[in-house]
Amino acid sequence: MSVVPLAAGNDRLKQIRKLSRRSERSERRLFLADGPKAVEGALGVPGCVVEVFATASGADLVPSGVDVTLVDDRALASLSDSVTPAGVVALCRFVDRPLTHLLQSAPRLVAVCADVRDPGNAGTVIRTADAAGADAVVLAGTSVDLYNPKTLRAAVGSAFHLPVAVEPDPADVVRRLQAAGVTVLATAADGEVALHDAGDLLRAPTAWLFGNEAHGLPDDLAALADHRVSIPIHGRAESLNLATAAALCLYESARVRRG
Amino acid sequence: MSVVPLAAGNDRLKQIRKLSRRSERSERRLFLADGPKAVEGALGVPGCVVEVFATASGADLVPSGVDVTLVDDRALASLSDSVTPAGVVALCRFVDRPLTHLLQSAPRLVAVCADVRDPGNAGTVIRTADAAGADAVVLAGTSVDLYNPKTLRAAVGSAFHLPVAVEPDPADVVRRLQAAGVTVLATAADGEVALHDAGDLLRAPTAWLFGNEAHGLPDDLAALADHRVSIPIHGRAESLNLATAAALCLYESARVRRG
Repeated sequence: MSVVPLAAGNDRLKQIRKLSRRSERSERRLFLADGPKAVEGALGVPGCVVEVFATASGADLVPSGVDVTLVDDRALASLSDSVTPAGVVALCRFVDRPLTHLLQSAPRLVAVCADVRDPGNAGTVIRTADAAGADAVVLAGTSVDLYNPKTLRAAVGSAFHLPVAVEPDPADVVRRLQAAGVTVLATAADGEVALHDAGDLLRAPTAWLFGNEAHGLPDDLAALADHRVSIPIHGRAESLNLATAAALCLYESARVRRG
Repeated sequence: MSVVPLAAGNDRLKQIRKLSRRSERSERRLFLADGPKAVEGALGVPGCVVEVFATASGADLVPSGVDVTLVDDRALASLSDSVTPAGVVALCRFVDRPLTHLLQSAPRLVAVCADVRDPGNAGTVIRTADAAGADAVVLAGTSVDLYNPKTLRAAVGSAFHLPVAVEPDPADVVRRLQAAGVTVLATAADGEVALHDAGDLLRAPTAWLFGNEAHGLPDDLAALADHRVSIPIHGRAESLNLATAAALCLYESARVRRG
């Protein structure tokens, strides 16, 4: 190719690089999808991708027919959060949707993260919800930013496969799900229903409510749910990792509904 | 208390601090348990703890009756891998046991990590195996060090609750488990048995074999197992996170055996 790749000092790239800050992302409603899986996922969402940047070698990782802006290695590294950038980054428009829109399609399985702070956990919940056949994920309250590079990396491509809503108030999310006919199940160590006895409950449209990794769900939020479900601990562990607990709940829903 | 706390420059602390290196840990068969959960876990293993170091405030987190060597804040921070040290660290003897010993107690549920490289994943598998009521964990091949502070942190106290074996050759582990009458199930995306159809298999003594987070299990190792089990993917995710997959398998064993 005879095109001269853009260098790191390029003015446009400097503006784009600012999207590493959450405040900048939120204001412009733009973010960077980093690596071939994320870029492929973003390209699958109509209207999401604004521009694809790649190094000469990274351009091979982009599906054919997609326009690419060539950048040099240093410029690509400046756009990437990764210590070993894969060579392709896409500038994307936000993909989250209002909860109201999600509810119009009558979801049957939803995962709600209330104040989940670790991007690896939030991303893993999105990936697992996708694998379990969920219809949507809600990041509620003080949950980590969906567009944090670490969230997107842990979600692999799933942040683009599933509709995700970002909502400020977890209690409001619970009430709106219930008003739409969705049974809300809170995960709680002292829940009155054991996960493997929840069978019949799980046949209805269900939203699982997961709390903060250190503190769990606040009592008043758990009390708003229709039922509180506990995962049995058979050994001496005190609890499960949040993403692990979410996987067990979401897959139990899948097992019951498809079994 | 009128005892003068040890400072970071103390010669003995300098020697102990070297245990942040895996080579030093392996040679001396000593490691550091960081934080109250880990120290409590280590104290529960007879003969494990050599000495407990704590700051004046950290000493309150140590169970009563346990001797504590007071150190100042800077000295404690120098022993801790954490960015926000909890104020208590224990110098401990290695707790892993030979696989031969573990097999003598006729384990009914075992988790084997083959070449699992991420300490968060390995620690989460140990924590989850504990919660699911497993009898042992094996870290095999090039798996991450059990005594890496990040592994221990992700395991919370479970590295001390469950017997863990560290073995160099995953294939040898599989053969020895089989010789001891344990059915070995490999997790594989293209496995011939679906997890939720594995029911009867899971009633026998079972070892689950989990592979590297990026590459999965090598084909020859998966072929050695008695069966290859796949976790259904209902949505568009390509795969599950390793620790998530392990949780679903281990808890399916628990459900079938206890249901």
